[in-house]
Amino acid sequence: MTLRHPLETKLENCRKKVDKLIEEILETKKPEILYNSAKHIIKAGGKRLRPYLVCKSCEFVGGNPEISLPFAAAMEMLHSFTLIHDDIMDNDNLRRGVQTVHVLWGIPIAVASGDFLFARVYEVISKALKQTVLSEKNVLKCIEKASEAAISICKGQVLDITYPKNESVTEEDYLYMVGGKTSSLFKACAEIGAIVGGGSPKEEEALGKFAWNSGIAFQIMDDILGITANEAKLGKPVGSDLREGKKTLIIIHALKHASPTGKATIEKVLGSDNPKLSEIEEANKVILETGSIAYAKRKAEKYANKARKILESFEDSEAKKDMLEILDYFTTRKY
Amino acid sequence: MTLRHPLETKLENCRKKVDKLIEEILETKKPEILYNSAKHIIKAGGKRLRPYLVCKSCEFVGGNPEISLPFAAAMEMLHSFTLIHDDIMDNDNLRRGVQTVHVLWGIPIAVASGDFLFARVYEVISKALKQTVLSEKNVLKCIEKASEAAISICKGQVLDITYPKNESVTEEDYLYMVGGKTSSLFKACAEIGAIVGGGSPKEEEALGKFAWNSGIAFQIMDDILGITANEAKLGKPVGSDLREGKKTLIIIHALKHASPTGKATIEKVLGSDNPKLSEIEEANKVILETGSIAYAKRKAEKYANKARKILESFEDSEAKKDMLEILDYFTTRKY
Repeated sequence: MTLRHPLETKLENCRKKVDKLIEEILETKKPEILYNSAKHIIKAGGKRLRPYLVCKSCEFVGGNPEISLPFAAAMEMLHSFTLIHDDIMDNDNLRRGVQTVHVLWGIPIAVASGDFLFARVYEVISKALKQTVLSEKNVLKCIEKASEAAISICKGQVLDITYPKNESVTEEDYLYMVGGKTSSLFKACAEIGAIVGGGSPKEEEALGKFAWNSGIAFQIMDDILGITANEAKLGKPVGSDLREGKKTLIIIHALKHASPTGKATIEKVLGSDNPKLSEIEEANKVILETGSIAYAKRKAEKYANKARKILESFEDSEAKKDMLEILDYFTTRKY
Repeated sequence: MTLRHPLETKLENCRKKVDKLIEEILETKKPEILYNSAKHIIKAGGKRLRPYLVCKSCEFVGGNPEISLPFAAAMEMLHSFTLIHDDIMDNDNLRRGVQTVHVLWGIPIAVASGDFLFARVYEVISKALKQTVLSEKNVLKCIEKASEAAISICKGQVLDITYPKNESVTEEDYLYMVGGKTSSLFKACAEIGAIVGGGSPKEEEALGKFAWNSGIAFQIMDDILGITANEAKLGKPVGSDLREGKKTLIIIHALKHASPTGKATIEKVLGSDNPKLSEIEEANKVILETGSIAYAKRKAEKYANKARKILESFEDSEAKKDMLEILDYFTTRKY
């Protein structure tokens, strides 16, 4: 039996509230196929890290996290929109242990359901004005943050799908791509939480930077789990990143440091349509022997430490402890 | 030589200004592929009816149309986003006489470039606050209008792609679908123009209704041209709607009123993967003989008249004349 990380219980509490709200927002109307496909990935699971970050940032600056719930729900919807479209782009069949939207309903409906979720994000945020004491100026700021994140995600995702064709992807390129694909949304969540909670510009900036660095640590660990975890825990087939030719930090490091034979073993699987399980295992063995996983872990720790440092100058509080716990969870989680 | 409609010169003037602004907004940065694919359909042509509607509505309520230009550009970007994604969903290869984005760059990039344009819409609108005298409240209202339109477009598009599999689509269903797919964006453009121009709620509502009815007339005429115009004028292959099994008003009417033989002739082409040109011509002949095109024209006129009537109670002005000219153009245009 795996020990539960203390954060997991807190995430579950947040999840219940956020999911209830999303269920209300996306209450099935006509055309039903649009609502069902839009809710599919949300219903399938997920940790609700982004909504948790919104609520915790709100609490961190002294706000009532309950007020931030519609924003938390909106950010999870934004995240789900990107997952549905990413799965089309990456041609992934499984996500969170269930078949992806385009596999179940076809690409046209998957495109539309992502668009639908994205459009609803802005509706939810602009309508939140009527339910909260927030000023119009601050609601507009939240909209700007959400848009900036979405723009960065598009850029990051395009890099992620064009990198496999590019031989000379560097660690710097990888970090730029992850910044767009993952950290920008974490950052927007923290900033929105701070804005909704009435935080100062200094707090907003610090929480944004905290979340940005946490996001990089999270993504590197996600890439590691993509290699070390099994299918049941991942919710998707083992070796997906390799098969898709994804240039993760681990792969970049391994390709640079492996022996010519080792490099060939990795390249045989990289971007291969249908590699054998034994070939994936051999590639993983090379990656392990090259010390690339240990290297990636150190990098993740480095970014987690950067994030930790940002919060140092703030007074101790329950919310601060919870924020730091997120980092501990990111760097130790097993799936 | 075809006589130019007087509106066309005005549209061209609007187009120059809006396109310059869009070119600035979408100035190519990295990743270049994202910018190039996002601008492709905008650069290929289009009449800029939606931006024109934004500017004219602004003028109609006494505002300076120049102030509404960023909103006009944003709405054209919103329109372009839906075109890129619609072409994926409809599997269309040609648009405005050029190959569609997914044909040129593949589905993953086409999905991302549509998402990118959509995200930028909100950025453009929220940033417009800094360039205009608009209140935050009114900018938020514009964001709500844009989101509502995007949500309706998603619903309309999903109906449009699910109708072909549905035998019993009625005229009412068609009008509901067109309301979502086309009229909702026309309506949002007019309302946003009115808001930006400082119009009263009564003006905003009237212009919204005017645009809604105009949109229905426009779409019905578009469906007619899809049958009567040639490929050069359409910018896409003749018979696309038939091939895709689209349930247009014309098809719904023809299927209801044709003889059993005529019905079979239409159904042979409807949703057929690769119909012969002679088969398309035969189906069109049946459609013409059944009086379905004349019927659709009358319906378009009916909606144009509804739109005309809405403006009757307003004082005469240059802007009002221009608005009414749009209706004349919609119901008489040849491509």
